[in-house]
Amino acid sequence: MRTQVAIIGAGPSGLLLSHLLAADGVESVVLETRSEEYVAGRIRAGILEQSTVDLLREVGLGERLDREGDPHRGIYLQWPDERHHLDFVDLTGRSVYVYGQTEVQKDLVAASHARGQEVHYEITDTALHDLETDRPSVTFTDRDGVEQRLQADVVVGCDGSFGPSREAVPQAVRRTWEKTYPYSWLGILADVAPSTDELIYAWHPDGFAMHSMRSASVSRLYLQVPNETSIDDWSDDRIWEALATRLGHGQDGWQLTPGPVTDKSVLPMRSFVQQPMRHGRLFLAGDAAHIVPPTGAKGLNLAVADVALLAPALVGLLRKDDHGLADAYSDTALRRVWRCTHFSWWMTTMLHTSGDPFDEQLQLSQLRWVTSSEAGATGLAENYAGLPIGF
Amino acid sequence: MRTQVAIIGAGPSGLLLSHLLAADGVESVVLETRSEEYVAGRIRAGILEQSTVDLLREVGLGERLDREGDPHRGIYLQWPDERHHLDFVDLTGRSVYVYGQTEVQKDLVAASHARGQEVHYEITDTALHDLETDRPSVTFTDRDGVEQRLQADVVVGCDGSFGPSREAVPQAVRRTWEKTYPYSWLGILADVAPSTDELIYAWHPDGFAMHSMRSASVSRLYLQVPNETSIDDWSDDRIWEALATRLGHGQDGWQLTPGPVTDKSVLPMRSFVQQPMRHGRLFLAGDAAHIVPPTGAKGLNLAVADVALLAPALVGLLRKDDHGLADAYSDTALRRVWRCTHFSWWMTTMLHTSGDPFDEQLQLSQLRWVTSSEAGATGLAENYAGLPIGF
Repeated sequence: MRTQVAIIGAGPSGLLLSHLLAADGVESVVLETRSEEYVAGRIRAGILEQSTVDLLREVGLGERLDREGDPHRGIYLQWPDERHHLDFVDLTGRSVYVYGQTEVQKDLVAASHARGQEVHYEITDTALHDLETDRPSVTFTDRDGVEQRLQADVVVGCDGSFGPSREAVPQAVRRTWEKTYPYSWLGILADVAPSTDELIYAWHPDGFAMHSMRSASVSRLYLQVPNETSIDDWSDDRIWEALATRLGHGQDGWQLTPGPVTDKSVLPMRSFVQQPMRHGRLFLAGDAAHIVPPTGAKGLNLAVADVALLAPALVGLLRKDDHGLADAYSDTALRRVWRCTHFSWWMTTMLHTSGDPFDEQLQLSQLRWVTSSEAGATGLAENYAGLPIGF
Repeated sequence: MRTQVAIIGAGPSGLLLSHLLAADGVESVVLETRSEEYVAGRIRAGILEQSTVDLLREVGLGERLDREGDPHRGIYLQWPDERHHLDFVDLTGRSVYVYGQTEVQKDLVAASHARGQEVHYEITDTALHDLETDRPSVTFTDRDGVEQRLQADVVVGCDGSFGPSREAVPQAVRRTWEKTYPYSWLGILADVAPSTDELIYAWHPDGFAMHSMRSASVSRLYLQVPNETSIDDWSDDRIWEALATRLGHGQDGWQLTPGPVTDKSVLPMRSFVQQPMRHGRLFLAGDAAHIVPPTGAKGLNLAVADVALLAPALVGLLRKDDHGLADAYSDTALRRVWRCTHFSWWMTTMLHTSGDPFDEQLQLSQLRWVTSSEAGATGLAENYAGLPIGF
């Protein structure tokens, strides 16, 4: 097999990249270890930045998003007895959209079918070769058990934190930074209309809680829990009770309406960055190069921003023999990566209790400032609503 | 002895309070364990916020400040290869002034002599009594060895972190928060013209460094050093060499000019807050209630802000039997205290290296944001230049 760009991973980064490359006449083949249904069914992020939405619209992926996506002007930030609304539109002129990653993935899969994109699902034994030459390749075993070799001009790792691409960069070249947090999220999906019009981020002495949503009839809620928490210790009743307490049920007449829980899981919180994001003919995008804790809603948006830089860089490289953007890709992408890494860490450490009483007071003081100072509010808003692509 | 307000401590808080009270016809006696010369000679803070300067001018303490103080539009923030100027005047309409605490203290002492303020220096055995009654008192031994009792309507603790006032609040009532930092400052005074027109805050992998000044011919410089550092290990040459490296001597032609070191000391970094700031007829102001690390230049300004709230509160209480401001004092003062505590912690942790490589990248990302985003720059500026009194 031979193609111009071998893309490892058929999540949002990989499929969006193949979509953008196809639009500019560059051919790609996508390789994925999971099944199409599994990838489309994974429950992930739910918030799209303005620039992500703009990009999806521009490249013909905005139709259902415009119909079903829910534009939000901002978020609520609260702590016991106080709830404040931050209006991103007023503060920065940009907004965010509630449109789940599962929906984006469905749109990308539909588009890939429509254009006849070659995607190999359920492959195994993926391995990257000859990345420092002009003739890199990827070997794998296809779903029928046949060993294959995909020759390409360029290989792109969109295979997240567990895929082989990240580690295909030689150890002598790569540098990594990592931080694990002393807490996790217990997340639920519930078949109940959200009890709020926009997301609620709640600081509470018992721990952080968040009320998000997927649609007018599906709510997504989170609780800060200790690491190593077993889901078995959290009955639905216990979850709803903790959510009611932390989100302020009854406060100023606000009510949290519980409903049937359809999904329940514990998510670890981690920050990770690997540099450089390019080595020879291998490029990394999305989770393959960086992981953020979910508090700032940055993971998916950062992956989209990577791909938005990478697609024109590869088009330049492969169609015009222009290396400029490709050579700049890693540095350019990493500026945004570190901005979002910092912002995600900042949102996370501002809102999650650590058990340290001095930290608690710092958090409350920070929250008061962010909700009372225009500079403070704008700083959060411009990071949350997202920087323009190419920043 | 009897007075209306017994003030413990003749530092800036105590003397400024007695000054403000006298202007409104309330009598006070100030008690101080050190000598007048010692208090006036202590080397402390050097930066006055706009609102501190405004207050000193309003109450007739601005003459020499206006003549000798040096208004600064902002600060420099830098890290290897990049130096940025933040212009507080452009960003917030407020500026800061270089005018050392020693100078403020001299002006306060001169004013106290001019109005015949009763101040007892070099006292010992200070003890506070009957604070929960309307007839509190302070006992002490005066410099001649005579045991004295000062009866008062109100006692104010302006006696810093080592004085007896803080601990005179019963343990069942008071709550304290404390944080020590894993580094100290090595500070020098040098008889040399500053090599910069405004303060330089420098992040460097070797540790933080700062170039401040006291006058056109006296420089004040700091180096981050490990806790327990012995001053004997730091020759003047070693200090100037480290300062040159960290401050970027030679970078873009900038030169650090060394000079004779006239003072050299190691300063620990600590955050501390005690609540409430009032108990019965005892009020706390300044370092007696809170300590901040010096990075944000907040210690002296916060003390002045306390006193600016406390003076009218005591005038109301003692002259008009109006308890409103006195009852609100602790809560009102603590809002600013926590804001400044958070800001000082934030500036400190953004600029001092901790040895953790992920933290380093977060710091650099934060610094890049603060110097490139108007919201980020304004957030720093409004905190540094200082909030209006009464915030």
